[in-house]
Amino acid sequence: MAAPVRGMSLLRQACLGLVRPTGAQVCTQVPYRCYSTPGVGQVQVDMNSETGVATVRLNRPPVNSLNLDVLTELGIALEKLDADRTCRAMVLASAVPGIFSAGLDILEMYQSTPERCVAFWRALQDAWLGLYGSRLVTMAAIEGHSPAGGCLLAMSCDYRVMADGKFQIGLNETRLGIVAPFWFEDVMLNTIGHRETEKALQLGAMYSAQQALSIGLVDKVVPLAEVMPTVQGELKNWLQIPDAARVITKTSMRKQVLDRLRSQKEKDAQFFADFIGRDSVQRSLGAYIASLQKRKS
Amino acid sequence: MAAPVRGMSLLRQACLGLVRPTGAQVCTQVPYRCYSTPGVGQVQVDMNSETGVATVRLNRPPVNSLNLDVLTELGIALEKLDADRTCRAMVLASAVPGIFSAGLDILEMYQSTPERCVAFWRALQDAWLGLYGSRLVTMAAIEGHSPAGGCLLAMSCDYRVMADGKFQIGLNETRLGIVAPFWFEDVMLNTIGHRETEKALQLGAMYSAQQALSIGLVDKVVPLAEVMPTVQGELKNWLQIPDAARVITKTSMRKQVLDRLRSQKEKDAQFFADFIGRDSVQRSLGAYIASLQKRKS
Amino acid sequence: MAAPVRGMSLLRQACLGLVRPTGAQVCTQVPYRCYSTPGVGQVQVDMNSETGVATVRLNRPPVNSLNLDVLTELGIALEKLDADRTCRAMVLASAVPGIFSAGLDILEMYQSTPERCVAFWRALQDAWLGLYGSRLVTMAAIEGHSPAGGCLLAMSCDYRVMADGKFQIGLNETRLGIVAPFWFEDVMLNTIGHRETEKALQLGAMYSAQQALSIGLVDKVVPLAEVMPTVQGELKNWLQIPDAARVITKTSMRKQVLDRLRSQKEKDAQFFADFIGRDSVQRSLGAYIASLQKRKS
Repeated sequence: MAAPVRGMSLLRQACLGLVRPTGAQVCTQVPYRCYSTPGVGQVQVDMNSETGVATVRLNRPPVNSLNLDVLTELGIALEKLDADRTCRAMVLASAVPGIFSAGLDILEMYQSTPERCVAFWRALQDAWLGLYGSRLVTMAAIEGHSPAGGCLLAMSCDYRVMADGKFQIGLNETRLGIVAPFWFEDVMLNTIGHRETEKALQLGAMYSAQQALSIGLVDKVVPLAEVMPTVQGELKNWLQIPDAARVITKTSMRKQVLDRLRSQKEKDAQFFADFIGRDSVQRSLGAYIASLQKRKS
Repeated sequence: MAAPVRGMSLLRQACLGLVRPTGAQVCTQVPYRCYSTPGVGQVQVDMNSETGVATVRLNRPPVNSLNLDVLTELGIALEKLDADRTCRAMVLASAVPGIFSAGLDILEMYQSTPERCVAFWRALQDAWLGLYGSRLVTMAAIEGHSPAGGCLLAMSCDYRVMADGKFQIGLNETRLGIVAPFWFEDVMLNTIGHRETEKALQLGAMYSAQQALSIGLVDKVVPLAEVMPTVQGELKNWLQIPDAARVITKTSMRKQVLDRLRSQKEKDAQFFADFIGRDSVQRSLGAYIASLQKRKS
Repeated sequence: MAAPVRGMSLLRQACLGLVRPTGAQVCTQVPYRCYSTPGVGQVQVDMNSETGVATVRLNRPPVNSLNLDVLTELGIALEKLDADRTCRAMVLASAVPGIFSAGLDILEMYQSTPERCVAFWRALQDAWLGLYGSRLVTMAAIEGHSPAGGCLLAMSCDYRVMADGKFQIGLNETRLGIVAPFWFEDVMLNTIGHRETEKALQLGAMYSAQQALSIGLVDKVVPLAEVMPTVQGELKNWLQIPDAARVITKTSMRKQVLDRLRSQKEKDAQFFADFIGRDSVQRSLGAYIASLQKRKS
């Protein structure tokens, strides 16, 4: 698959065939318009044109790890929804039981090439800029574990409902010997404040749903089966607000953090590729992968 | 009434007759020196020269909505108190039962002229700069509803005591299809932090006193009859602190937010006039006014 | 004692004899390597080379007030530990029962010379920059009162455990008619957020351990005898994290506040010397010292 081209809309690149939007075909059944072939794509988009609410489900078993393909698809899906004037809100969820998303695919970082690393990082940046800056009401339905990049996606929504029980959420990068980028940090700062972020990031802390609720990392905790109904109920509050006023307000609150990344996307991507390329980091990742494989067998 | 002249103290303009300080005559009874004729002006100022505590009561029935006159008077009152070396503290309250302030007078925004809009906005800016930057200990006695601009005034004090019960407080601008200006947002950020502000502003949320307490939007909640005694009791703690050290500290904490508005007052006023002048906003406001009138009849 | 020379490492100056590191001799018993002669220096450093954890104890009875000597020793100790590759963590504690540290020695501010004031302030700046910017995991074991500069030292660690009971902590400067410097304020902002900081600093508030816990000023409260064991237990969590990733994360979170002081150290020191030299401040301090002496007798 070709790497996304910088400075061009992902949607546009997909139309030009520069990137492969594997699961992003549009079908137009009413009331459900599905951008993806349901149950097939890695990013499934179901658009309910009666309610104006799209449901975006990550679907890359076993753990929805975010590789170049998934991030590209997610970025395209967000762009399409943004351009769809009938769409007012989006629920981000998982099609894979037990997991929201395991975060960045470690295989994109291990023994990769600098070029691939940069392309991978740009796709992550674009997907995140699309999500955190979305004009839509965005809600995370967290029905499973949500470490690292999974936590980032959840934090970037406007509201978070998490399933009670054994699932955990957090930015646990330091535990793998890597570091959450500055914009992960910025999003966490805007969510739980400076002190909790300092502890969370240094310790690579993973929180239970109840702990996450107590520090403000999620907004509501309910039994697993009630996550989606709770999200739908909460959405009603948000959809009562006139879109124009809400979007100006949201933009005003998030602009600083969005602009910080926008102003240094290439530098950030290059930094990532260089950091990941270090021998010490490659060794850490190798050891981690080995431990995962051992655990499986 | 003439519009306030930019760059000149409101007090000075009042003395020159450029603005009409309707309720701002000074009378010098001891221990109470009243800047206003009690029970007459729209902003009643009672100065207790024994305690050094002034009580400023908004008095524009039925809901203390803030129009050009009231904001001009309030700005003048704040300047006078600031200049009065015997005054160390100020309690901001309402003379109208059941309401602290309903916020900006919507009639100043509906079918107004751009010139009047700008004059109105300048009066609001000046009153707020005077309050948020006041050298006095400032306390809000919130004995009634406090939406929008009412919430701004309360948040701009050093301490907030609110009556328990049915009253609500919050920046509910988005519900009317309008947007809280950046400095309303800044003050709320300094009061309840980023995450709560993002939710509160996007949803135009109104909070009960207990909810407001739980997110830090007010500092204490007591029965209605105990609001004023509680404020007086709390004032004792604040007046134990030497003024000079307290004022330097307060300035250091608030300077950044004050400077942000000071550096772009005219741009902000022009933005407001332009925004309010939009057809879509005028229609929203017209519909809202019609709904209010319908409710009354 | 000579004043520290600007722009030169304290350790280097000590080696050159420019400053007197009274308690900072290195002894190399294993597993305890003591930089200080135990029980003798004003800053006692015990390095456990098996665990990689150093314990730094302030030891200037009766109240560990921070004068030029103690701050210089503390700065040197921090530099040495930073340079010691076997050291991964540091516990900051007190050798004096009932007190963590009473903060800056008021006698350094009363009837001093401008030159001494500037030297004193530089030593404070350097010790703080060394502590807040330390690559080590830093933990405060708060086994006694911790006002003013004592609170600053505690807040500058990565984690705070405080003894339950009668002890208090806070930045109480305004009560003495003085003002916490901007970087004390910055550290408090990063610890308890804007609203709590505004109240705490204006009121010069002192908090019980339980109150401090409720606003996030400390992380854990336990009975006095359990403070050290609790710190040691918590350290295990932090030492599980690879140092490199943790240090990059910590630096990223603290850089802005550190840089703000670094960029204006001399201006800040001069401001302090000028402020302290004011007649009104000298009178306040004189009255305070008199009241202390009266209390003693």
